[in-house]
Amino acid sequence: MKRSMLAAMVAAGCAGALHLVPAQAQFAKAEDAIKYRQAAYTVMSNHMGRLSAMARGTRPFDAASAQSSARIIEAMSHLPWEAFPPGSATDKTRVKGDPWKDAAAFKKLQDGLMAETAKLPAAVATLDGLKQQLGATGKACKDCRDDYRKD
Amino acid sequence: MKRSMLAAMVAAGCAGALHLVPAQAQFAKAEDAIKYRQAAYTVMSNHMGRLSAMARGTRPFDAASAQSSARIIEAMSHLPWEAFPPGSATDKTRVKGDPWKDAAAFKKLQDGLMAETAKLPAAVATLDGLKQQLGATGKACKDCRDDYRKD
Repeated sequence: MKRSMLAAMVAAGCAGALHLVPAQAQFAKAEDAIKYRQAAYTVMSNHMGRLSAMARGTRPFDAASAQSSARIIEAMSHLPWEAFPPGSATDKTRVKGDPWKDAAAFKKLQDGLMAETAKLPAAVATLDGLKQQLGATGKACKDCRDDYRKD
Repeated sequence: MKRSMLAAMVAAGCAGALHLVPAQAQFAKAEDAIKYRQAAYTVMSNHMGRLSAMARGTRPFDAASAQSSARIIEAMSHLPWEAFPPGSATDKTRVKGDPWKDAAAFKKLQDGLMAETAKLPAAVATLDGLKQQLGATGKACKDCRDDYRKD
């Protein structure tokens, strides 16, 4: 029983199945959703920056610290998606285009990011692995930003 | 090897050993630290709210969703502490008193919160467990706020 619980915890990952819960139910107001998703991006972006500094050599490579950042990035990458209720592209946001017009297209980009962040914790065990998978993760970020975020 | 990796991932939890990394090294400016810790609190608070709604009965109890929230709360509870560099109690913050004056006292409150959030994922398997451990976690939040946060 203990082992199956461990396995379930690992399988569920840090963020769990949050993205399966209907979006609108989670936030009383659009502002709450905006604040929440921006917070998730802030934390994610900070840790992408830490890995990036290691990749560039402006910060010493440290596998434990890199793995900690990688896990946080992975967990954060699951959070924003439920926090895009229709009408939450206000002037306080950088939303571009219409992510609600083609839900499948938006979802594909979300899934693309989560697929790459899932590989980060193992990849950052070495500096070469970090560089490679940080690149792939950054590309998945960019793919989504290109379509849905103002510069 | 696979099993030991799983075990290590579980042991390390979502947030890992981030709080062991020296604080000031992580943020270029105090504003970055403030934004980061506030983001962590935003995400944590949102999920405390979800559990709270289940405890109050304004949202149906769902063990999977509760566990997902509990894991996020646990992970978030590790993040803010490195993001309190000296001088980061500006007028954009609600910092009260002087958390830097007695580092041991501040650390004790941080540890208290992390000890309670660590119990959340298992506790929320039942509604009674959720109510009990949400209360204990909320108390640990309050203990710290009482000393260091403006109302």
